[in-house]
Amino acid sequence: MANTVKVRVPGTTANCGPGFDAVGIACTIYNDLELTLNDQGGISLAVMGEGAGAIPADGSNVAVKAIQMVLAKTGCKLNGIHLKMVNNIPLARGLGSSAAAIVGGLVAANELTGNTLTKEDILGMATAIEGHPDNVAPAIFGGITVSIMDSGNAKYLRLQPAKAFSMVAVIPEFNLSTKAARKVLPDSVPFADAVFNVSRTALLIGALCTGELKLLSHALEDRLHQPYREQLIPGMAQVLAAARQTGALGAALSGAGPCLLAFTADDSDEVGKAMVKAFNIHKVPARYQVLAIDEQGAVII
Amino acid sequence: MANTVKVRVPGTTANCGPGFDAVGIACTIYNDLELTLNDQGGISLAVMGEGAGAIPADGSNVAVKAIQMVLAKTGCKLNGIHLKMVNNIPLARGLGSSAAAIVGGLVAANELTGNTLTKEDILGMATAIEGHPDNVAPAIFGGITVSIMDSGNAKYLRLQPAKAFSMVAVIPEFNLSTKAARKVLPDSVPFADAVFNVSRTALLIGALCTGELKLLSHALEDRLHQPYREQLIPGMAQVLAAARQTGALGAALSGAGPCLLAFTADDSDEVGKAMVKAFNIHKVPARYQVLAIDEQGAVII
Repeated sequence: MANTVKVRVPGTTANCGPGFDAVGIACTIYNDLELTLNDQGGISLAVMGEGAGAIPADGSNVAVKAIQMVLAKTGCKLNGIHLKMVNNIPLARGLGSSAAAIVGGLVAANELTGNTLTKEDILGMATAIEGHPDNVAPAIFGGITVSIMDSGNAKYLRLQPAKAFSMVAVIPEFNLSTKAARKVLPDSVPFADAVFNVSRTALLIGALCTGELKLLSHALEDRLHQPYREQLIPGMAQVLAAARQTGALGAALSGAGPCLLAFTADDSDEVGKAMVKAFNIHKVPARYQVLAIDEQGAVII
Repeated sequence: MANTVKVRVPGTTANCGPGFDAVGIACTIYNDLELTLNDQGGISLAVMGEGAGAIPADGSNVAVKAIQMVLAKTGCKLNGIHLKMVNNIPLARGLGSSAAAIVGGLVAANELTGNTLTKEDILGMATAIEGHPDNVAPAIFGGITVSIMDSGNAKYLRLQPAKAFSMVAVIPEFNLSTKAARKVLPDSVPFADAVFNVSRTALLIGALCTGELKLLSHALEDRLHQPYREQLIPGMAQVLAAARQTGALGAALSGAGPCLLAFTADDSDEVGKAMVKAFNIHKVPARYQVLAIDEQGAVII
């Protein structure tokens, strides 16, 4: 049995405006994870790129946690876990870096322990570690996914967008933990706001499935999380407005942020530059990256 | 210029579980409306079928209101409004009878005044009378529609379901006004319930667009309106459960009720009979009707 495997996992953007905790899209930005298992014990970790020097090399690392979960589930006796990561997905910015680490760990460990887990099993395990399925589902399956929690079990649907679009991810130079971003959310919301998000979510999925992308300007509107998270991201409203003003189809917070994402049909660079400039006005250094939808999800390479 | 026209308008089911005020489906149950305009003044109304004897023949009648709105907008001087209705859509049951009357009046009056209004104009006018677009949109456009309100303007998207399904409408023998059904809704809801409905709405639209109809059992779940409306409809939970137990894909309140609707791939009659029986156990007389999606919306006949 080979004891080394290499996995490539896409970054993901979740929520997509109104679709809080439900809608996710896999993006063409990747982390590579090389896992070696042996019977010599110990955990080692070498990270290049994003997170180098910042990711812990022990059981608190979510990739290690994921690998250990597979080893326990499959009864594998190998106790040495050695990881090399080449990371392009920025950490704690709302582009699914932790989902990618979890999914990468699960897929790699599954491959090295006889491939006994289905993708659905991996979704369940990844959701258990991450706490919610909206990033891990597209990281596993690629494309656009809708995921729900049903009595503690994640269910998903993969969608095929009827028309291609680009995504301009604007990445500010500061981190925001999902935990902190969840803390600002209220316990209850006005009925009208819930209804607002229901209608925008219906329009979002409908627009993606039919290719009526001009509806995204309305379909990305949100009243459930973005208004509460604005306080955590200096210039957020202005950056989103800059995207729309330079011709983006629509724009929204990526996951729990602080990354902001514009959906574009063309002029992606122009949109990206305008968004970076709007961040800069608020003294936030930022860069942008133009992404497409990743169709594959996690793959062995 | 012809001064008589006949219009056929479909009934509609709105909400469809989680999609409160947003999702609507046109159904193969119809009201026919024959409008004659003349310069003799007066309003007359002859109703056959549902609502015979119960529908007022004056400006409080929504069809008359709709016709008068078109006459005012187009500057038409004809002041005699004479209506004959043959109604199959039961009144005040949650199958869009008032939306059908409004849309029928608008479409008929538009036809008799030179066809100057677009379907989008008609959507705006119908929404102004009805107060929300979710029934009037499918009554106009047919099929499945998502509609939103944007600063007082209705916008819509028409969806093509990837796979056909039937709808079993179970019609109890009592009325429920939309006004009464809205009164029981809360001013605010738990954040988790709003998120729940967002995820189910995303799944609903995704399931309809991809044809993954087995997901409807989850996709029709709702926490925004049905739990509050159960008190108004004796046996509601049991009737919905009976539908699922006899093989329905899922089941939900139709609009504001009291009609309950099951989505079925087959065995529609068996589902309908079980639902009627469950209503009967709660001493509610009821009947069922198997419907399909109407693809056309309102048409001149």
